[in-house]
Amino acid sequence: MKKLAISLVGAAVAVGALYAVPAAAQFAKTEDAIKYRKASFVVMANHMGRLSAMAKGERPFDAAAAQNSAKIIDMAAQLPWEAFVPNSATGDTRLKPEGLTNAADFKAAGDKMKSETAKLVTAVATLDGLKGQLGAVGGSCKNCHDKFRKD
Amino acid sequence: MKKLAISLVGAAVAVGALYAVPAAAQFAKTEDAIKYRKASFVVMANHMGRLSAMAKGERPFDAAAAQNSAKIIDMAAQLPWEAFVPNSATGDTRLKPEGLTNAADFKAAGDKMKSETAKLVTAVATLDGLKGQLGAVGGSCKNCHDKFRKD
Repeated sequence: MKKLAISLVGAAVAVGALYAVPAAAQFAKTEDAIKYRKASFVVMANHMGRLSAMAKGERPFDAAAAQNSAKIIDMAAQLPWEAFVPNSATGDTRLKPEGLTNAADFKAAGDKMKSETAKLVTAVATLDGLKGQLGAVGGSCKNCHDKFRKD
Repeated sequence: MKKLAISLVGAAVAVGALYAVPAAAQFAKTEDAIKYRKASFVVMANHMGRLSAMAKGERPFDAAAAQNSAKIIDMAAQLPWEAFVPNSATGDTRLKPEGLTNAADFKAAGDKMKSETAKLVTAVATLDGLKGQLGAVGGSCKNCHDKFRKD
């Protein structure tokens, strides 16, 4: 899946007819692409919240539940990138235009996030591991949001 | 994860204080639960559409892409059940009240769907396998929608 996601992000860097085919294939309309990527972030954010509650001691640390959430986060982290299709910085989205026009930096920010979520799956075996890697994942989220998401 | 999802659906059958704890833990507000479960269905539906396009010959059969979609569908299929929290049949949802009041039938419909999506991951190795199991998954979707989703 990672290979697929990367190849699709790569495709997003290309323009015109080459890209029109996969875009049309995955999403009938631009709104569908926006809805899809937002859905993946909704799922991701919910499980980040669950891990955050454990990190803060607001809920008891549960290694199995933490790993379940980490796997969901890592899975969801693979999804949105192909949905940043041309002309999708308007409509029901907080994407800044730079996410599309500065595709190399946007891809790097996404790749950083995916590398951190991949580590999360094993890191959450202990509470200390969870706290450390959750911070790294959260930092990668914030980095991308600061650059590419409107407030 | 399946075990967790089932235990949470089981918890949803219980009422009052016993359920209030996990519900509050996973979702701060009822709207959050609705948003979360809808997000999982948005992801699922998108990938069902991709497989459907292959089944119909609208896009070339690609075993790797099909398996990627099947894994995402099976993952997403685990998610929504814990989000059918008390009082969540109103608001931005098409859930019929029966989904909450007839919890045993609702759980059975969900379990059927999950058993079919689990088979999908290997079935999509061939186009014929994809066609057959996609029909079984789609049937389990329709069964639940007919009973528990408003038009």
